[in-house]
Amino acid sequence: MSNLFLRTLREDPADAELPGHKLLVRAGYIRRAAPGVYTWLPLGLKVLRNVETIVREEMEAIGAQELSFPALLPREPYEATNRWDEYGPNLFRLQDRKGVDMLLGPTHEEMFTITVKDMFSSYKDLPTTLFQIQTKYRDEARPRAGLLRGREFIMKDSYSFDHTKQGLEESYAKHRGAYVKIFDRLGFEYVVVHADSGAMGGSASEEFLAVSRHGEDTFVRSPGGFAANVEAVVVPQAEPVEVSVGPAHIEDTPETPTIETLVAALNANHPRDDGREWTAADTLKNVIVMLVHPDGTREPLAIGVPGDREVDAKRLEAQVAPADVEAFEEKDFAAYPMLAKGYIGPGVLGEEKASGIRYLLDPSIAEGSAWVTGADVSGKHVIDLVHGRDFTAGGTIQAARIKEGDPAPDGSGPLTLARGIEMGHIFQLGTKYAEALGLKVLDENGKLVTVTMGSYGIGVSRAVAAIAEDNLDDKGLIWPRHIAPFDVHVVATGKDAAVFEKAEQVVADLESAGLGVLFDDRPKVSPGVKFKDAELIGVPTIVVLGRGLSDGTIEVKDRRSGTSRDVAVDEVAAEVLSEVRGA
Amino acid sequence: MSNLFLRTLREDPADAELPGHKLLVRAGYIRRAAPGVYTWLPLGLKVLRNVETIVREEMEAIGAQELSFPALLPREPYEATNRWDEYGPNLFRLQDRKGVDMLLGPTHEEMFTITVKDMFSSYKDLPTTLFQIQTKYRDEARPRAGLLRGREFIMKDSYSFDHTKQGLEESYAKHRGAYVKIFDRLGFEYVVVHADSGAMGGSASEEFLAVSRHGEDTFVRSPGGFAANVEAVVVPQAEPVEVSVGPAHIEDTPETPTIETLVAALNANHPRDDGREWTAADTLKNVIVMLVHPDGTREPLAIGVPGDREVDAKRLEAQVAPADVEAFEEKDFAAYPMLAKGYIGPGVLGEEKASGIRYLLDPSIAEGSAWVTGADVSGKHVIDLVHGRDFTAGGTIQAARIKEGDPAPDGSGPLTLARGIEMGHIFQLGTKYAEALGLKVLDENGKLVTVTMGSYGIGVSRAVAAIAEDNLDDKGLIWPRHIAPFDVHVVATGKDAAVFEKAEQVVADLESAGLGVLFDDRPKVSPGVKFKDAELIGVPTIVVLGRGLSDGTIEVKDRRSGTSRDVAVDEVAAEVLSEVRGA
Repeated sequence: MSNLFLRTLREDPADAELPGHKLLVRAGYIRRAAPGVYTWLPLGLKVLRNVETIVREEMEAIGAQELSFPALLPREPYEATNRWDEYGPNLFRLQDRKGVDMLLGPTHEEMFTITVKDMFSSYKDLPTTLFQIQTKYRDEARPRAGLLRGREFIMKDSYSFDHTKQGLEESYAKHRGAYVKIFDRLGFEYVVVHADSGAMGGSASEEFLAVSRHGEDTFVRSPGGFAANVEAVVVPQAEPVEVSVGPAHIEDTPETPTIETLVAALNANHPRDDGREWTAADTLKNVIVMLVHPDGTREPLAIGVPGDREVDAKRLEAQVAPADVEAFEEKDFAAYPMLAKGYIGPGVLGEEKASGIRYLLDPSIAEGSAWVTGADVSGKHVIDLVHGRDFTAGGTIQAARIKEGDPAPDGSGPLTLARGIEMGHIFQLGTKYAEALGLKVLDENGKLVTVTMGSYGIGVSRAVAAIAEDNLDDKGLIWPRHIAPFDVHVVATGKDAAVFEKAEQVVADLESAGLGVLFDDRPKVSPGVKFKDAELIGVPTIVVLGRGLSDGTIEVKDRRSGTSRDVAVDEVAAEVLSEVRGA
Repeated sequence: MSNLFLRTLREDPADAELPGHKLLVRAGYIRRAAPGVYTWLPLGLKVLRNVETIVREEMEAIGAQELSFPALLPREPYEATNRWDEYGPNLFRLQDRKGVDMLLGPTHEEMFTITVKDMFSSYKDLPTTLFQIQTKYRDEARPRAGLLRGREFIMKDSYSFDHTKQGLEESYAKHRGAYVKIFDRLGFEYVVVHADSGAMGGSASEEFLAVSRHGEDTFVRSPGGFAANVEAVVVPQAEPVEVSVGPAHIEDTPETPTIETLVAALNANHPRDDGREWTAADTLKNVIVMLVHPDGTREPLAIGVPGDREVDAKRLEAQVAPADVEAFEEKDFAAYPMLAKGYIGPGVLGEEKASGIRYLLDPSIAEGSAWVTGADVSGKHVIDLVHGRDFTAGGTIQAARIKEGDPAPDGSGPLTLARGIEMGHIFQLGTKYAEALGLKVLDENGKLVTVTMGSYGIGVSRAVAAIAEDNLDDKGLIWPRHIAPFDVHVVATGKDAAVFEKAEQVVADLESAGLGVLFDDRPKVSPGVKFKDAELIGVPTIVVLGRGLSDGTIEVKDRRSGTSRDVAVDEVAAEVLSEVRGA
């Protein structure tokens, strides 16, 4: 440590929010070079390499072959798949000295596809699976939490190539197996969730999430083991019910532009015949958003949800992609004078109604059910408006927020919600890229068939962050053994030269047994500072040489449990070795 | 090979010029993604990793510590050192979504300097040496020869940090030693040349060149072992000579705008008194170029060289850097009407003469020597113009082309010229970057001193190309053992299942002994194609199983020598193992 390029910091960095990010900076693993762009210092690089090794080993174990594409890429293939535009401002674009458009690869589907196309022509060449561990670029609007959401980051991306759907399913299953092994080895709590609507069979897209309260993604779990991203939860269409109310009637409800004020006014001025209280769940809220399509055209969309639900931005975005969602603003209302803000109802919504705005309903809204909703006049609502009798919509949309306690799709009971960080994604991509770029092979009958692909990613630098976030305490990092930058941290304390000599010998013994040793040989640093640094850095086993030496013992500490024990000097190397190897 | 992501090509790729580049593409090591941007296919990636490992091992052996900077960098540090501008069109610049200027790092002096500044503050922290093996970007005007001059390429760059000149010299010497070991291991012919004028002591800047007739750099060697880039050759100032001619006299020399026409006219119409023939060496040629400074200002420069020499663009560029050199064009002549094109002489050159153009002479032009040169009037030259008596210049410049047979600076005899490819550069950078970015430490006396740096680079991807260019024959590549993608290539021939079974067993034996084996198990490919592919791919040892098996023998071929021998079946594994290990 007297030579190591490392300076630990006592203070948290100003730009770090999450505890693991703070510690990675304080303990000298990473350093910010620009927003969302990080330098790997020597300790960090060792950790990164350990993660890469785990990923590489499991990829090779399923027969995936490694190659490496450039990060600086030509525009043409991304133009062919429309992603040059679709990526919007997330893509780093640049021009070379001749004015030729280029980009920094955000992901490499196109390059893999055209390379396989260049080299393969027969079904006999398939299946094949290729991977790379490579630097990628996305110009995130909000780079966040250090390595968790960077603008330059390292990913393992892989792609499988098959000529039949069954082949794709087999390739996908192999990858899924490898991912489970990888995430089991990485050392943080994770969950595998369904990541799309299941329309392709339920396993066509799954995400590996690190369970973390700092996560940006919300996922649901059922008692029966079902787990899914909120985007992938499919709320079933409610069964029709018998109409139980009389004709719809418009009522004055002055100054009730919110659900809360509306429910209060209903209970005060329009009590129900049967005496039940009105609740938010009796109201139909119509939310209007503006979709921005990749070609720049803007289209309003109205969504009807029960008043006790919100529209969930992520679920909505997943439904309307590749369009972006923006707020419906004052100037938009000005363009649609038939919309009475705060009192919008189905009377003007729908492509054949006055507004011409497409109107979709939450699937929980049963045919035959009655609602209180806007009467399209300021200060008025309509009561007992029945779905199917008095109004219809252009279809349904899975966009309402999922709530804790909602029934699980697998019928096993109520859903629970948790937060996670997307660490891996496996996806039966199908023929999208192969079609756009003309990747076909001759099949058994000599017929040209389009190749079907799987796409599989792991955030490698992000995994370093996730491991850090899930392996720490108030003193510092606590690396899992196979991830730690060193196997053991030897601390020599005091001023006695004999201690340092003995420590050197212990280090030599450990190193000759093949262990990676971090040796704190700093001559003028106090034991207290050395212990603090060791705890901050987080090597799992800490060996302390000091006063105990006169009794013939050396202290061996376990960083995670905090326990320590005295070991006879001659037995230290063997003891540490068995501890490290046993892990 | 039935699964390997590899298709060998029979035809040379259209865009490849050099034999090694052609073979790297044909044998499936690399593939072009864009001009100067390459994909590493599985075989190529293995070779690249082997080169990286050699570089990393030798860097670590001198105590250098590895870290990794991003490629996407902020503008500010490069602004502080003026390189944002100095790099000109060679720098890939881009803006992020917020319009912030960024760049793709062409080299990382700035980032290393500010990171050390952030972390270190005392001379006790020094010396330290840091390195990275990382992807770099330069927007070359003429990307060339595949990996030899790419726009995205992999470099090892390292930097030493010292607080004394002596420390820098020691760090430099350590690096030089490591480089010699690296280049000895890489397996191509190389030479270490002086790369600057030697003003800082002769060893302040050295280049490691791969000796290659395809090289872009010319270097010189003396019989005494001196070697230098042409840019670094210092022609000594010629000793003054006694004036041996009468007064200068202007003569009519119509239509003699070139040295050749002038010499012919002199011999025809102005014979010398002593009967000697005029030669080009008797004439003084004045060449005018336009310097373009980094701030965009343009300044003409006149260079006087003997008529039998050219101005060497590389030598001139090295002298005037960071200015660029452009041709002096017609429009420039129009701005300087006193310049008689083809008949320019010292009469109008120099800062105090009519043109005001700075005028520098080649050092071979002795004081007292007499010349025929332009009389600044079209069709007239002046004869017997004596340097020091009749004209002077503002100084000398090392810009004339070095010729085979010129005397060596070390006095050991005539120089020979050869061509090479720059593979490594070690350089005593001094305080340039530390001063620009404020990197200072407290010295032994508590005084702030500016840190002095060394800068050291190796073209890692370029090394793959140089190895290929120097290890090939008309059949394919011939990898040095420690660079080869595999240790041994096992070829099973024929249709006999027993051959393939035996081959599998041999492969298993070799792999369990720790060797990397490429196994040609393709069932329906002819022996001829398999042999051709093996020779093209260039694994150093080729094991062929075929007809010999019935006699109990297997053929072991040496790819480089082309020799082969029959080895008893049971001894093949041991034989190959000892061959590989013995290398």
